[in-house]
Amino acid sequence: MTRATENRQRIITVTASLFNTRGYAGTSMSDVLEATGLHKGSVYLCFPSKDDLALAVFDYSVRMMLTKFDEAFQKAGARSIDQLLAFVDVYANLKDEAPFVGGCPVLNAAIESDDAYPFLRDRVAEALRQWQDLLGNIVKRGITRGEFATSTDPEQMANLIIAGIEGALMMVRLLRDPTPMRQMLEHLRGQIRALCVNPVV
Amino acid sequence: MTRATENRQRIITVTASLFNTRGYAGTSMSDVLEATGLHKGSVYLCFPSKDDLALAVFDYSVRMMLTKFDEAFQKAGARSIDQLLAFVDVYANLKDEAPFVGGCPVLNAAIESDDAYPFLRDRVAEALRQWQDLLGNIVKRGITRGEFATSTDPEQMANLIIAGIEGALMMVRLLRDPTPMRQMLEHLRGQIRALCVNPVV
Repeated sequence: MTRATENRQRIITVTASLFNTRGYAGTSMSDVLEATGLHKGSVYLCFPSKDDLALAVFDYSVRMMLTKFDEAFQKAGARSIDQLLAFVDVYANLKDEAPFVGGCPVLNAAIESDDAYPFLRDRVAEALRQWQDLLGNIVKRGITRGEFATSTDPEQMANLIIAGIEGALMMVRLLRDPTPMRQMLEHLRGQIRALCVNPVV
Repeated sequence: MTRATENRQRIITVTASLFNTRGYAGTSMSDVLEATGLHKGSVYLCFPSKDDLALAVFDYSVRMMLTKFDEAFQKAGARSIDQLLAFVDVYANLKDEAPFVGGCPVLNAAIESDDAYPFLRDRVAEALRQWQDLLGNIVKRGITRGEFATSTDPEQMANLIIAGIEGALMMVRLLRDPTPMRQMLEHLRGQIRALCVNPVV
């Protein structure tokens, strides 16, 4: 790895936590310099503007999340129900570690960018659509294989899971109380099991 | 109304939309001066710091929301099920008008303040708890009156409604697509109706 690549990666990793706790508007380039311990020249060489850095950081956070989900799906095996339950379990075992220091990067970036930062909003919307497709496709496969009832609406199920988890995450982080997430995940598990044509063992 | 009171109210009303679209960190006191058209002295006389202004604006937004909910409850009448369905309908008919310009003030302030602004976070958490109690008490009354099954968990139901709606609101605003909210509200209506001991007409 060249020095420039090393620096780039270090800036992204360190700034991901800054953006996700303080927000995009609440993080200055001076904060980035201080947190990375790098010289101004090195940082601006990699990222000419804060916007460039914000996009790189967001993409990195999303890749980290998708990797977490992939790992869960791998462990879960081929059945759609197990994959959906494994997805829910990622949030049952959420630790305050990357990329979740400061909460969900998609939720945080969505709230901050939706009215104020179109350049970031487009990227966050893209990530959310990717996430909807990921879950929607699992449900679709479940229907095709005869696991889930044909009356199941894949998009509705994907949106229910995402909205429920993100809303509960906001409550948990604000109240410093895990109860709303525990209750939401239990509710979602029930909804997922109810998709099955045959009772789940 | 004195000039000072008038100014105070004008500053709060105008800044409520600024904070709710650009965020607390993304709004400067210069933005406030520009948007209100008032002199620096008049603004600082009412609000010595941006923190003072942020708290006043948040309290105002929450009062506006609670008034909206109260109106819905009044129209709904005495039955708990009608009150819960009326609450859900507030979000079905949401317009981009105060206090919802820029989305839900509680959600926006929660995400921005949870790690970065403890002075605001405490106030937002208090508002969220008030909201949980409001819905939880409606469910409790429904149980006491024999409308809802005794096995109903009022806190779980309140949290499910709040988390579901807030998560869906994030998706709707980010994607500029009302579908996730429509689907979530339909889901919540089903959950609310399922609480009833007797089928609802």
